Amino acid sequence: MTAALRAEVLARFPGARADDDALARARTDRSGTPGSADPLAVVRAGSVDEVRAVLAWAHEQRVPVVPRGAGTGLAGGAVADGALVLDVSGMRRIVHVDPVEEVAVVEPGVLTADLDAAAAEHGLMYAPDPASAAISTIGGNIATNAGGMRCVKHGVTRDAVLGLEVVLADGRLLRTGRATAKGVVGYDLTALLVGSEGTLGVVVGATLRLRPRPHVGGTVLATYPDVETAARACSRVGAARLRPSLLELIDAATLAAVADHTGTTALASAGAAVVAQTDGADAPTAAAELTRIVEVLRDGADTLEQDDDPARADELLTARRLALPAVEARGHALIEDICVPRARLAEAVRGIERIAAETGVPIYTFAHAGDGNLHPIVSWPRDAGASGAQRPAAVDDAAGRIFELAVALGGTLSGEHGVGTLKRAYLGLELDADALAVQRAVKAALDPRGILNPGKAI
Amino acid sequence: MTAALRAEVLARFPGARADDDALARARTDRSGTPGSADPLAVVRAGSVDEVRAVLAWAHEQRVPVVPRGAGTGLAGGAVADGALVLDVSGMRRIVHVDPVEEVAVVEPGVLTADLDAAAAEHGLMYAPDPASAAISTIGGNIATNAGGMRCVKHGVTRDAVLGLEVVLADGRLLRTGRATAKGVVGYDLTALLVGSEGTLGVVVGATLRLRPRPHVGGTVLATYPDVETAARACSRVGAARLRPSLLELIDAATLAAVADHTGTTALASAGAAVVAQTDGADAPTAAAELTRIVEVLRDGADTLEQDDDPARADELLTARRLALPAVEARGHALIEDICVPRARLAEAVRGIERIAAETGVPIYTFAHAGDGNLHPIVSWPRDAGASGAQRPAAVDDAAGRIFELAVALGGTLSGEHGVGTLKRAYLGLELDADALAVQRAVKAALDPRGILNPGKAI
Ligand SMILES: Cc1cc2nc3c(=O)[nH]c(=O)nc-3n(C[C@H](O)[C@H](O)[C@H](O)COP(=O)(O)OP(=O)(O)OC[C@H]3O[C@@H](n4cnc5c(N)ncnc54)[C@H](O)[C@@H]3O)c2cc1C
Ligand SMILES: Cc1cc2nc3c(=O)[nH]c(=O)nc-3n(C[C@H](O)[C@H](O)[C@H](O)COP(=O)(O)OP(=O)(O)OC[C@H]3O[C@@H](n4cnc5c(N)ncnc54)[C@H](O)[C@@H]3O)c2cc1C
Repeated sequence: MTAALRAEVLARFPGARADDDALARARTDRSGTPGSADPLAVVRAGSVDEVRAVLAWAHEQRVPVVPRGAGTGLAGGAVADGALVLDVSGMRRIVHVDPVEEVAVVEPGVLTADLDAAAAEHGLMYAPDPASAAISTIGGNIATNAGGMRCVKHGVTRDAVLGLEVVLADGRLLRTGRATAKGVVGYDLTALLVGSEGTLGVVVGATLRLRPRPHVGGTVLATYPDVETAARACSRVGAARLRPSLLELIDAATLAAVADHTGTTALASAGAAVVAQTDGADAPTAAAELTRIVEVLRDGADTLEQDDDPARADELLTARRLALPAVEARGHALIEDICVPRARLAEAVRGIERIAAETGVPIYTFAHAGDGNLHPIVSWPRDAGASGAQRPAAVDDAAGRIFELAVALGGTLSGEHGVGTLKRAYLGLELDADALAVQRAVKAALDPRGILNPGKAI
Repeated sequence: MTAALRAEVLARFPGARADDDALARARTDRSGTPGSADPLAVVRAGSVDEVRAVLAWAHEQRVPVVPRGAGTGLAGGAVADGALVLDVSGMRRIVHVDPVEEVAVVEPGVLTADLDAAAAEHGLMYAPDPASAAISTIGGNIATNAGGMRCVKHGVTRDAVLGLEVVLADGRLLRTGRATAKGVVGYDLTALLVGSEGTLGVVVGATLRLRPRPHVGGTVLATYPDVETAARACSRVGAARLRPSLLELIDAATLAAVADHTGTTALASAGAAVVAQTDGADAPTAAAELTRIVEVLRDGADTLEQDDDPARADELLTARRLALPAVEARGHALIEDICVPRARLAEAVRGIERIAAETGVPIYTFAHAGDGNLHPIVSWPRDAGASGAQRPAAVDDAAGRIFELAVALGGTLSGEHGVGTLKRAYLGLELDADALAVQRAVKAALDPRGILNPGKAI
């Protein structure tokens, strides 16, 4: 059955492959979730018409399809599970950038950083900046509603998407949204599709909002005796109505890992650190904002360093930038992504420390503090097994408790990575039966045969 | 049939009324669209449970229900057409304002201006500011995705809604969204519901984003020989990456009407006028932004007046504030609401002038220029009939041509008022058959019996 279907796919679609290498690479994403089986085949689509043809055929044959961008997802959203993988990362044209309307029209496989660079040529920026910007696609960002560090001031992917071209489960092409700044004709299908993790349609084109590229100001790095003091400092920044373009918190475990990794000791024994950066229409505006943020962060700080030169100031960001590599140097990493109301940040970090102590599993936490979005990294030794498949039970136990903690604090299972495969079992913590029923009714309305990324997201 | 059903409604629901006065008042909205029949009855709901009971009953009986706020809508969205009108304007509690999370939780009947005033007590603002803020409800604003003057900088209603409580067609209560700054769990039903004009559910509660209340800066008023020069000046403001908190354009016909109305002649013979205002974190920031905007607007201007004192500066806004009353003083007014790409603003105004000339119907246009959102006001003499019912055919002809113009310029039928009853016949201009089919599939998924505001919006 699989063999016959596979042969048909290979015969029918020029971009189809089913060699071991192609299948192995498309089987999972960066979460390492093994999934139940290799893909049926991988079709690398080069055009909207090819995507339509693949879906029209799959719909008719009732073959499940997993849309795929760069495969950098951390929630197992692109895990193949035996489905036909539809890889659109090769559709990577920036169709145009319009500096007057401040919009860009792109194909789905454009890398996030490439779009931002194209915008920069016109004094504009593409605001959402996942740490994976250099390797992730706009289509994947849209499907996961990706966030990043500067989203605290400039918004997440949802805020940047004006319109979409989406191929529906049955191969029809849906155009959503508009070329204008405002509009209220028809339901907002654009927003419905953003963050839908490939379960409602395949994004084949997007009209994106660009913003004036601000002048990046200086940076401040402060350390605190404990995470409560650090979190309070972050809260005060918001309460003072200041708008840093980046406001990150790093916990003690992560600081120790960074110190190990880099061989520096400066931050090794800090209870927590906060990094903030500002931007503005011009240098004085950004500098003035930094001065006010420094005043607010100083209160309660053990140490505070500040640099107004954007180039050198970036050094103050090193601890934050190296947080993940430093933790990954210590072992395997399950990268989590909860979000809590900003005021509960310290409780969340303390709760995670407690979970680490109770499960005996090391957890390292850093956070987009300005959004209350925490990334607890659950770690386990490399010799315990080479991949996610052999993840010790205690790791999953710890992750489950982190989700419970998030919801108990009034938060959510995922701030920016999505539900994918990994968090699906926990959906019921956050969505009640009626909410789930409505989600499934919407899914059934758009994909009545359930062929699009089945078993993911909802 | 109607009489028996009406009697049942009156017996069943304490807040129900069916006296002539109540029926007449709930029959139409501020568009004056007469609709096909009086409401079956009007239920003024006082609680979520009452709303649920009404819908559960209506669902079972397959009785159509029209949700209603303050009835200030301009698209005929709340027109009764014989349905049961469910008026939630009495549910007007501001449940709480949280200055740390910068959110407010409100009931649907809260007046927009009351929420903004409550936010102001904490140094915050509720950004969307329809000109009807003093009389329209948050529930109505959400249902129409209302905009306003400061939306050019601070976003429309959609940007301010974090979560909703919505009673579905069958009486189930759906909670959407979250209390956190970010999240990507489940489809974005919040955004789907915003702008859905009461066709997918009844909003009974909302969690809204507040923003730091900016310091309001000064104002500038410039006149130009013609609308092209004025529109180009507005475009240059955007191109220079300036961010006025208000950027309005007024055409020659409107300026003449205002001059008549106020007995002043200053602007009577101008070809067009532009008004801009700034805000910022503090007075110097707002003043600096104004200075730069003045520089940009000066080029090509016949006259330019500026005032940095916010109180007196408001006088410069008079022409804009009195635009609608001045036009209404001349006769009946059909208030239209198209949106075009910003760069096509002048073409849109000229196109509307042409339509006025060809149809012989006076049309007055002012615009949220920064968003490309025009309000052409189609006017006809009072003695031609007392209400919309007797609207001359030429008025509807002119309106239809305005919609065609909007779509031809790459724009939309409605920037902020919605489709309601009035624009439904023109939907096909903007949405193709596949897009309409998807909209209807979503509607059927949430309201399978089609009882919620049938015949409206989509
Ligand atoms: C080092 C590292 C850092 C990261 N940092 C961040 C961060 O800061 N913020 C953040 O939000 N994420 C981050 N991520 C996660 C990941 O990069 C994002 O989720 C990204 O949006 C995924 O893009 P992708 O192209 O790799 O998508 P994939 O992994 O290929 O797919 C992700 C999901 O989107 C669907 N999908 C992909 N393309 C399409 C399409 N065209 N149409 C429909 N559905 C589609 C897939 O089915 C899947 O469900 C990081 C990942 C890594 C490895
Ligand atoms: C003088 C004047 C100026 C105006 N200026 C603006 C402006 O600047 N910007 C702008 O956007 N609009 C403007 N409007 C239009 C109008 O005020 C808005 O559309 C407003 O959002 C309607 O709110 P409402 O409470 O009156 O709603 P209604 O008129 O009662 O209803 C409007 C629509 O929303 C639905 N609805 C109402 N409440 C609910 C609910 N709780 N749940 C579900 N559906 C509901 C109704 O069914 C209907 O489809 C103006 C109107 C006037 C009269």
